[in-house]
Amino acid sequence: MAAGTNQAMTSPWALQNTRCKEKTMRQDIVERQAHAIRGARLDAIVSSSPENFAYVTGYPSPTQSLMRWRHAMALVTADAKISLLVVDMEATTIRAKQPGVDIAVWHEFSFDCMQVLTALLQRHGLAAGRIGIEFDHLPAADFAELRKLLPSARLEPAQALLARARQIKTGQEIEILRKLSRIADRAINEAYAVVGAGASEMDLAGALTRGVYEYGAGYFKLMIIATGERSIFPNVGPTMRKLQRGDVCRVEIFPMIDGYHAGVCRTAAVGAPPPHAERIWAKLTECKHMLLSTLKPGIGSRKVYELYLDKLRALEMEPISFIGHGIGLHLHEDPYLGPMPDQPLESGMVLGIEPLVMDTGYGFGMQNKDMVRITDTGCELLSDFTDTDRLIMVKG
Amino acid sequence: MAAGTNQAMTSPWALQNTRCKEKTMRQDIVERQAHAIRGARLDAIVSSSPENFAYVTGYPSPTQSLMRWRHAMALVTADAKISLLVVDMEATTIRAKQPGVDIAVWHEFSFDCMQVLTALLQRHGLAAGRIGIEFDHLPAADFAELRKLLPSARLEPAQALLARARQIKTGQEIEILRKLSRIADRAINEAYAVVGAGASEMDLAGALTRGVYEYGAGYFKLMIIATGERSIFPNVGPTMRKLQRGDVCRVEIFPMIDGYHAGVCRTAAVGAPPPHAERIWAKLTECKHMLLSTLKPGIGSRKVYELYLDKLRALEMEPISFIGHGIGLHLHEDPYLGPMPDQPLESGMVLGIEPLVMDTGYGFGMQNKDMVRITDTGCELLSDFTDTDRLIMVKG
Repeated sequence: MAAGTNQAMTSPWALQNTRCKEKTMRQDIVERQAHAIRGARLDAIVSSSPENFAYVTGYPSPTQSLMRWRHAMALVTADAKISLLVVDMEATTIRAKQPGVDIAVWHEFSFDCMQVLTALLQRHGLAAGRIGIEFDHLPAADFAELRKLLPSARLEPAQALLARARQIKTGQEIEILRKLSRIADRAINEAYAVVGAGASEMDLAGALTRGVYEYGAGYFKLMIIATGERSIFPNVGPTMRKLQRGDVCRVEIFPMIDGYHAGVCRTAAVGAPPPHAERIWAKLTECKHMLLSTLKPGIGSRKVYELYLDKLRALEMEPISFIGHGIGLHLHEDPYLGPMPDQPLESGMVLGIEPLVMDTGYGFGMQNKDMVRITDTGCELLSDFTDTDRLIMVKG
Repeated sequence: MAAGTNQAMTSPWALQNTRCKEKTMRQDIVERQAHAIRGARLDAIVSSSPENFAYVTGYPSPTQSLMRWRHAMALVTADAKISLLVVDMEATTIRAKQPGVDIAVWHEFSFDCMQVLTALLQRHGLAAGRIGIEFDHLPAADFAELRKLLPSARLEPAQALLARARQIKTGQEIEILRKLSRIADRAINEAYAVVGAGASEMDLAGALTRGVYEYGAGYFKLMIIATGERSIFPNVGPTMRKLQRGDVCRVEIFPMIDGYHAGVCRTAAVGAPPPHAERIWAKLTECKHMLLSTLKPGIGSRKVYELYLDKLRALEMEPISFIGHGIGLHLHEDPYLGPMPDQPLESGMVLGIEPLVMDTGYGFGMQNKDMVRITDTGCELLSDFTDTDRLIMVKG
């Protein structure tokens, strides 16, 4: 008997989330996918990655990203029918969130995921269909098994189609990303406000994580707390280092709700900024405003990057390898604002932009990472809690 | 030009970690793998998953588990030669950690990972070799490309061999897991000690995360804070709910160091335990001691589970679907202590054991999750900071 199949048992890993209200399937996104499926002459798509499962359902399968074999998949057909495929241990949770949705359950310790997927596809009349698969996610073993079980089906790559669809956010997605942007911005701002010289990076971390949860995030990824001489290191967590007057501090965090991320970074000085800090901050502020006035529908992603490099040259600053990227259900999504193939920006895209100076020779690093949404005419700053035109000051 | 190839540029994502001292490759693990490679009549293994990369190197590639296309791979040959394959953005970081190790660099925005891997395998004379691959990790697209680029090679599944090797921890791995177990146990214990009735779950969360970092973790996964009526839900994060006299509280966290996890859960009562709580805790304590006296080399994983079910019956408690599992570089590893195929326990295994009562009808849930190591004669409790024979009391 496979563990977890007996519903009367209490599984230590059967997860529930009481914070989320009951949700309906995301019909707008399903319709968008169905349209894309028909456009690509496919019959259906099987979304297998955590981000694309959440894209259809509105939430991640609880432990999928913790244990990658715990497959959760969303089948969307060309006529916008939906079925979910979930592991036995998560079935109760997902049924409770999606009453009325067709759910097929596979059994973790029977390793029958591809068999149950095959039966599901057959039930939808797709045994000889053209089925879009995330070739960049589905592991080779599962793919080989599926191909064997469905010898008449044509399995086609669908990852680019899904990634493209995810670039343009729906109103609901923008609301989540706006909320997350403000959570991050406010939590960092308020963490800076409650510490001062003599407090440790751990004190900053404690206040920051508290704020992130308090303002509504369910989780976070990365927490960068880099102060004083550590501020030049791009990705370091908190230590027991104590803040000192004259330190530059860099704090960054990615709160999460329902699988979505927003990333915000704020820089502060303790007591009095060290030499050159305010001058460099003024340059980064110019860079931010240059981006905010440049980002709009129609401009090329590469063009933005080239204009940014021009700005850096004019300010006598070092070039960087890219200046922003799409963000949402994945930490980095297309388009990148960098030296990649050009793509025109579109209304509804949400981007992280990150002016930074990491190693100036002055012994500190500074970064000002914001979240923006491309509107019909320009862009909206989503991380708007903090006025970053002036360097944040921590009590010194 | 691909972003990140120009080393003079400052990448916003080129990560550095100053906390880690310089490390040498893990020769004991490489030798163990080489032995297994020869035993399986392979010529080499390419470890592509975050856990198996970290298994060889001793640390994860910084952003691999955040962005799954950022492949980091470790090639180990039958004669214990090693090469790493890393993405351009992480190359500097990994070179700094592993001076002298052969490193091949692929370019994120040129998508040339499989081409660089192919060249690396050719350089090792493996173009027609038998090469072990993680079929349960490497995405279908990469696998297909590799097969095309290396038509004479035989690509064989190696995931079971790697998972089997990881079951028996080295002395260094046990030290990390012991440290993590104590970090989790102590951080939960001290978080309970600084709150009381009237404090919120957020206060508990703030104290807990602070402790986890302060005692040396670099990150954590999952943070379960479930108090009062919420204590019956297996996996819920902190809310603004205030602790009340008579609450039962469940707190669980998985701190991480160098890719390793330990999971500890502790249950407490606020002020005075509610009716039945102490009686149920006494039963869970019996269950814990039953496990600690049962776990030893040679006993079957399924046998332990069956004995545990006997114990539950004797105590008039509900059965559960498994009672423990291996843990280390992955959150769940074999062997499971459950109704799965039997496997004898061995000295050097590290397991999480988790006596719990999640929904008693009394309106609260309790769990006591510990980390244990199988020794030559029995087992060692690694999460030994807190005496859990009596229910922890929070100021009420």
